[in-house]
Amino acid sequence: MSKKVGVLLSGCGFLDGSEIHEAVLTMLHLDRAGAQIVAIAPRGPQAGVMNHATHEPVPGAKRDILEESARIARGKIRELAEVRARDLDALILPGGFGAAKNLSDFATKGAAAKVHPEVARLLGEVLDARKPIGAVCIAPATLAAAAKQKGVHPTLTIGDDKSTAAALVQLGAKHEACPVTGFVVDEANKIVSTPAYMYDARISEVDQGVAKLVQAVLAMA
Amino acid sequence: MSKKVGVLLSGCGFLDGSEIHEAVLTMLHLDRAGAQIVAIAPRGPQAGVMNHATHEPVPGAKRDILEESARIARGKIRELAEVRARDLDALILPGGFGAAKNLSDFATKGAAAKVHPEVARLLGEVLDARKPIGAVCIAPATLAAAAKQKGVHPTLTIGDDKSTAAALVQLGAKHEACPVTGFVVDEANKIVSTPAYMYDARISEVDQGVAKLVQAVLAMA
Repeated sequence: MSKKVGVLLSGCGFLDGSEIHEAVLTMLHLDRAGAQIVAIAPRGPQAGVMNHATHEPVPGAKRDILEESARIARGKIRELAEVRARDLDALILPGGFGAAKNLSDFATKGAAAKVHPEVARLLGEVLDARKPIGAVCIAPATLAAAAKQKGVHPTLTIGDDKSTAAALVQLGAKHEACPVTGFVVDEANKIVSTPAYMYDARISEVDQGVAKLVQAVLAMA
Repeated sequence: MSKKVGVLLSGCGFLDGSEIHEAVLTMLHLDRAGAQIVAIAPRGPQAGVMNHATHEPVPGAKRDILEESARIARGKIRELAEVRARDLDALILPGGFGAAKNLSDFATKGAAAKVHPEVARLLGEVLDARKPIGAVCIAPATLAAAAKQKGVHPTLTIGDDKSTAAALVQLGAKHEACPVTGFVVDEANKIVSTPAYMYDARISEVDQGVAKLVQAVLAMA
């Protein structure tokens, strides 16, 4: 039986959605391992749209999180509101600013972040079901905020950025520094994280960390 | 000396831009091999915008090819008009409908396709310089149209789709059928192609074909 692994996307592009390399490499390693990929995204407007050539906001531009995420998923995507923990054996959150702008508001609110209600609902269900969760790059921040609502205090990594790590600790998580090619496992909570593009890294380095995260998640699923 | 390899993008999403998996896997294998990635895209409006969740056109929507391509390139991208063959050791074109809608109009015109003037200019320069070119998925169609303008008749693959192969032959190319995990090399013209998502394939299969294409391109660079 192949394992069904949700990949929770937040748009398409590192400045306003999912980090594309992290999302694609997650899918690559899941598929290599014979897992079934269940791409998921919330429907609704992105927090904003960024011009990725200039790195500037595009005033007034509107994009839907699900429709943009579908670009990475090649059109095969499920609306978050329709997905339950029982549909999945594990869940992975790629990073990108979308994970901290659209799945929560951590990017602007830090430790006061609120999690998107459907994201909090699914993460809560998966934590309750004691199924493994993987979080890449900045996604551990949103996961920490959701876990806090369940009274869960996971050990996570967001690399070596001191201020982001401090916000994670304020959210009740424990932080472990970790290189881009490494990963951190919280065995008790079945949570795996890798810092990926929290570093100014090469894609082949990010690939190593994501590959290890996917293997660790599947081993616990 | 690391080799500089252009990756010519056409937007971000398989229905109106670059096929994201093909583009990211091209970058992954180039970086693993120690090559320097030079992401490139033309500036200007996409031929159209597709809703990737419904697979329907979005009437009236406008997106810029360069700005969308920059999502895949994480903001590090050069405008096509400013790139010369002398800046590169090789050039790779990922696929996706963008390669046949924005880099040429092959998607609508078939064998009567016209190539984007700057795309034709750079491909012509690279052919003249006898530097290797890789083309993934549907990109061989645009490459065949550009090569025809230079009197070059390469051997290419677009998989096993008979009508697309027939259009390629009308454009003066020779077609060789090829599985998703394989690739075709035209040694005389230094042109490599792999069919990728011309098949309804798994990402790990596409990865195998793209890895071999990148290796073959770098071997000739």
